[in-house]
Amino acid sequence: MINGMKNPPDVRIQLPEESSSGPLNGNVTNRKAEVMQVVLRALCLETSVTALSLMVTAKQASTISVFGFNIPLHSKWSFSHSFEFLVGITAAVALHLILQLLISGSRLQRGSPIISSRNHGWIIFAGDQVFALAVMSAASSASSVSSLNHTGIRHTALPNFCKPLHYFCDRVATSIAFTFFSCFLLAILVVLDVLWLSSKR
Amino acid sequence: MINGMKNPPDVRIQLPEESSSGPLNGNVTNRKAEVMQVVLRALCLETSVTALSLMVTAKQASTISVFGFNIPLHSKWSFSHSFEFLVGITAAVALHLILQLLISGSRLQRGSPIISSRNHGWIIFAGDQVFALAVMSAASSASSVSSLNHTGIRHTALPNFCKPLHYFCDRVATSIAFTFFSCFLLAILVVLDVLWLSSKR
Repeated sequence: MINGMKNPPDVRIQLPEESSSGPLNGNVTNRKAEVMQVVLRALCLETSVTALSLMVTAKQASTISVFGFNIPLHSKWSFSHSFEFLVGITAAVALHLILQLLISGSRLQRGSPIISSRNHGWIIFAGDQVFALAVMSAASSASSVSSLNHTGIRHTALPNFCKPLHYFCDRVATSIAFTFFSCFLLAILVVLDVLWLSSKR
Repeated sequence: MINGMKNPPDVRIQLPEESSSGPLNGNVTNRKAEVMQVVLRALCLETSVTALSLMVTAKQASTISVFGFNIPLHSKWSFSHSFEFLVGITAAVALHLILQLLISGSRLQRGSPIISSRNHGWIIFAGDQVFALAVMSAASSASSVSSLNHTGIRHTALPNFCKPLHYFCDRVATSIAFTFFSCFLLAILVVLDVLWLSSKR
């Protein structure tokens, strides 16, 4: 007798729900939302890196003349804790975004959805939310220091630093503006994360 | 003939789905989450009002002696834009929370769920998120000004204000600490809102 199958069983391969809603018979709306998320992340990475590089290159030496004496004045981003905080946070945000972009880019290329599961969705939401709050904190504290540099402190003799150091002050102000814009983009990303979480069960 | 009903029709009152999951055959987990949300909101209201009242009562007059001269020193919260910003934001948060508490309190008493629909859930999420970011901004900018008051600005002649004005500085610091705590509570409320949105379709 030969071992053989006379009546081979009816084999049906059941694909899991998740992968069948992938790129082949794809959910176009989902794909659009995913591409939009990647684009927003890339834009946010750009603004964070711009803010970071503007801040770390902000230094200027100048002189201020008081009663005919020329007093040398030197200004650098690392003289203020708030500016150091901004540099640290924007660097951390840039790293977070690069990591997210690498992961979602490779998943998009493979045609699988960029958020694999509910837990993954929650992790991304938590990361975006924490960084949105941190970036808001960094931008706000830097902007309040920068506005003190501009106007001086009322009721004290602190002068307007930004007259002799306008190059430094402009660079810092632009960096802060980009940081606020990063925060805005992260807040939009948080809303997209919540939309994803609320559309899946 | 007398107008009357010999065979009264079989009247059945069909309660809508929403209200039948209310307190009678209630979903205990939902109810617990709702009560927790109300408690967190009340706690956050308390911390915001504390921060607000500590800040608006922060003023002190003192003297500083320089070369034997007594120079009068006067400090008030309204001398700094950042402290004014903090007062404005904590007041707005308190109003938002009072409104939410009134709405959800009356709904809890009536036994209906405190979030009536998905749209309502999204509105509450948006409010909490915007206020969390705003409170973070206010607390950060106030704390950077306050830390400058404590340490002075490096490379300038700004003195340590907080030696003669320790009452003022302590009050401001406590107010800022309460503001950060409000932000933390609002961030938790945002997570609860997202949990609600992700559990309902």
